[in-house]
Amino acid sequence: MSATLKRKIHEIVFEADTKAGKTFDVVLLILILLSILVVSLESVYTINKVYGVALRWIEWVLTILFTFEYILRVWLVNKARHYMLSFFGIVDLLSILPTFLSLVIVGSQSLLIFRSLRLLRIFRVFKLGRYLGEGQQLVDAMRASRAKIIVFVSAVLTVALILGTFMYLVEGAENGFTSIPRSFYWAIVTMTTVGYGDIAPQTVIGQSIATLLMVLGYGIIAVPTGIVSVEFSAKKNVAETVSTQVCQHCSKEGHDADAHYCKYCGHHLL
Amino acid sequence: MSATLKRKIHEIVFEADTKAGKTFDVVLLILILLSILVVSLESVYTINKVYGVALRWIEWVLTILFTFEYILRVWLVNKARHYMLSFFGIVDLLSILPTFLSLVIVGSQSLLIFRSLRLLRIFRVFKLGRYLGEGQQLVDAMRASRAKIIVFVSAVLTVALILGTFMYLVEGAENGFTSIPRSFYWAIVTMTTVGYGDIAPQTVIGQSIATLLMVLGYGIIAVPTGIVSVEFSAKKNVAETVSTQVCQHCSKEGHDADAHYCKYCGHHLL
Amino acid sequence: MSATLKRKIHEIVFEADTKAGKTFDVVLLILILLSILVVSLESVYTINKVYGVALRWIEWVLTILFTFEYILRVWLVNKARHYMLSFFGIVDLLSILPTFLSLVIVGSQSLLIFRSLRLLRIFRVFKLGRYLGEGQQLVDAMRASRAKIIVFVSAVLTVALILGTFMYLVEGAENGFTSIPRSFYWAIVTMTTVGYGDIAPQTVIGQSIATLLMVLGYGIIAVPTGIVSVEFSAKKNVAETVSTQVCQHCSKEGHDADAHYCKYCGHHLL
Amino acid sequence: MSATLKRKIHEIVFEADTKAGKTFDVVLLILILLSILVVSLESVYTINKVYGVALRWIEWVLTILFTFEYILRVWLVNKARHYMLSFFGIVDLLSILPTFLSLVIVGSQSLLIFRSLRLLRIFRVFKLGRYLGEGQQLVDAMRASRAKIIVFVSAVLTVALILGTFMYLVEGAENGFTSIPRSFYWAIVTMTTVGYGDIAPQTVIGQSIATLLMVLGYGIIAVPTGIVSVEFSAKKNVAETVSTQVCQHCSKEGHDADAHYCKYCGHHLL
Repeated sequence: MSATLKRKIHEIVFEADTKAGKTFDVVLLILILLSILVVSLESVYTINKVYGVALRWIEWVLTILFTFEYILRVWLVNKARHYMLSFFGIVDLLSILPTFLSLVIVGSQSLLIFRSLRLLRIFRVFKLGRYLGEGQQLVDAMRASRAKIIVFVSAVLTVALILGTFMYLVEGAENGFTSIPRSFYWAIVTMTTVGYGDIAPQTVIGQSIATLLMVLGYGIIAVPTGIVSVEFSAKKNVAETVSTQVCQHCSKEGHDADAHYCKYCGHHLL
Repeated sequence: MSATLKRKIHEIVFEADTKAGKTFDVVLLILILLSILVVSLESVYTINKVYGVALRWIEWVLTILFTFEYILRVWLVNKARHYMLSFFGIVDLLSILPTFLSLVIVGSQSLLIFRSLRLLRIFRVFKLGRYLGEGQQLVDAMRASRAKIIVFVSAVLTVALILGTFMYLVEGAENGFTSIPRSFYWAIVTMTTVGYGDIAPQTVIGQSIATLLMVLGYGIIAVPTGIVSVEFSAKKNVAETVSTQVCQHCSKEGHDADAHYCKYCGHHLL
Repeated sequence: MSATLKRKIHEIVFEADTKAGKTFDVVLLILILLSILVVSLESVYTINKVYGVALRWIEWVLTILFTFEYILRVWLVNKARHYMLSFFGIVDLLSILPTFLSLVIVGSQSLLIFRSLRLLRIFRVFKLGRYLGEGQQLVDAMRASRAKIIVFVSAVLTVALILGTFMYLVEGAENGFTSIPRSFYWAIVTMTTVGYGDIAPQTVIGQSIATLLMVLGYGIIAVPTGIVSVEFSAKKNVAETVSTQVCQHCSKEGHDADAHYCKYCGHHLL
Repeated sequence: MSATLKRKIHEIVFEADTKAGKTFDVVLLILILLSILVVSLESVYTINKVYGVALRWIEWVLTILFTFEYILRVWLVNKARHYMLSFFGIVDLLSILPTFLSLVIVGSQSLLIFRSLRLLRIFRVFKLGRYLGEGQQLVDAMRASRAKIIVFVSAVLTVALILGTFMYLVEGAENGFTSIPRSFYWAIVTMTTVGYGDIAPQTVIGQSIATLLMVLGYGIIAVPTGIVSVEFSAKKNVAETVSTQVCQHCSKEGHDADAHYCKYCGHHLL
């Protein structure tokens, strides 16, 4: 097979700029969605009883297609190792393995749900750059506030552990607080304002502690919100108000987008 | 009928500046509210049993009035198609059809609740401009952060699908996680901190995954909040600190509200 | 009684600057708290059965004290009408009436809980100005974003009404959605992420609509948060970066806190 | 024992800069985590029945180790009182007392969960400064908005008390609203959007008040979020845009990070 043909196939499989490449990606996305639907439906007892055999057939056909696609990708790229160890390489492998695994371990095909991660390819198809850029901004803002978020989560978990244990002592097993781990679980359910209600305090002291925990959880949500808002704001301000221009005279940057003269040396900005 | 009369009726029906126009709109709003109340009460079994006939009579009278109003509007506007395909045109049609439909399909009159969308006319009656402007600002801020919101919602749905499937494998049908779709539903209920409690994890591993999902959902709410805050902030800053003045010499705009000289060419701003 | 004495009593009752005035307010606050506690305890069946008579005695003594205080206040102020129609005047009256009313209507003394509004006096006792100022800032920020909040709440209620009605059609009475008002109530419970779980969707379509409503409610909370954040931010920026200085030459204000010269006419700021 | 040796031990026990000091802290953290795990597992009935004796043995060994560590710390520091009354001194004591107390009062060893507070030492081990600094920023932002938060929490509690009492009057004991304190508890559960569902309104009026309370609670969360966002934002802006430079001529600070000349006296900044 000539190198030109290989390069052409590479373009179709890995890129979405040409018409053929875009068609390939769209078909792939439809197959992935179909496969997630099949796995989901297979888990519904009443549907599985009637259409089980058909669903398993579709699953196997899709898995063989995806396996062929995976081998194709490994063969196409110059550095196979690099692709196989990349995020999408691992996801692609994880999304075919469970079907073969299901021959040995019954029920493991539910792990095929990892295929949903492949849907992230969707951002490649339409307006690639923009959406990936936005996603990158989200990730950047998170990373910048990582330290604050770790401190915050530690504080939440510690408060939940201590107040949860108090509830275990106050309410006791007869009201559903049967152990410290279970009381900790209840405290998290309460602080995050989820509130299933499967465990709920019955005594007056217990309800008082619960009230404290709720008001705390209700108010404390302001903290991560504040952190992320400020990070976003900082990112946006830099992106919008500062141009990427560099002064040709003193080589300094950080000029306002509408500046005509360097604010450090007075030289005209070109 | 003279064109003057037609223009006068047009003013009364479509505008709210004159006294007659305002009265028309207020009466219309009261009739819409009454009609929503009637549809709601009709759905309450005990009320329907006693006052059912009376309620259906009111409904028919209101529907005929609204039908007459719809025909009037179509006749009044110059471009009937334009109105019929506009947002309010479709809503006006949708809010009369179900009554006629109920002659064929029993129970379809509940769809009359679409009439509540007609209530949006309320903003036309008092201080029209201002409230519509505020609504526009909300819509603009949303639109500006559309890409970020799509990325965010995709991430939430993917996490809910994967962790929901894990719960299906871990908890199983005996604890209420009967299928992947149902487990996905539970994951969304948990991540959004709604927490009905109709399905709740019972095993230790299940409760651990649930804890992770709750803390994730609790913290992740900060992301859309941050996005929208920043967009609002940007909109407001532009609106407040930048005047709408245009330099008469170089025709550039974007000057600070208190600037006396053009910051681009130095010409005096009038 | 001399005018001097009257002025002295006025100072004690209405102000908290002198030692006597502060003592009066602190004693009053303790009595209010005691009275709220008494009303609350009276409503607990087991406590009422044993200590009911004693509690009712305390209630009557407190009510007579508060009545005396109310008459005193009316007598002290120059414009009695002005006080009686003010916020605190109405609250003071509302907090004594229910006890007398309970002679006629059994159970109406629970309305004494209005006394809790009197606790707002607490901000007068310690660092009056500062806390009232902060409260004022909160109220101002709310008022400034009133129009946006009305638009937002209208949108939430309309969405809840329409999707609630859909649920009524889809789920029906057998799954708890017995009427449109009840389905609307469920939609609000879901959108605000409260999620009692007393009504929960059982069908697949119902759970899909619920999922949509939850994601909507989860994301939409960002809107009021963004609005209020921006308002606070604007208030704070003005308060911090702009001084209250007025140029003595051109009478303009809005100068930066650290400016030495008027930015409009160049005159030295004193 | 020589002073040099004492200083060396001090360095190992109190600091995490040297290799030995870091090892000491890491081992300590592992022992604390182990001890929390032991206390938690001991509270699980089925585990306690089988491994109870072993768990209690581990607990005693750990407690004796921690007691030795506490005595060591008291002996090492110059001002023993200062350490004993510091936050970590009290936590260290609280985390050994319950085991000894359990000899007298059965079940009190659950209080050992206070040991989780010792985990805060974790921030000392890796990148000490940074994480402590972030924690300090969180605390500072909270402190700066303390007055606003007190006003906000007072308002929430007052609204919950008044609307809770209304629910007690409207719904009554037969629907679970057995007393004012319990109705207050329900109002808090609803306003904070926790929504257990153990108590839920059944009457139409009750559900209307609940709807009001939910929309209120849902919208009002914007207030603390706004407060904290603005505080964070202020802190960050100061930290980022203002340099720590001091003018050598007029000794004023607060200059922009990129300023070359003092904005107060015009002197060149070095």
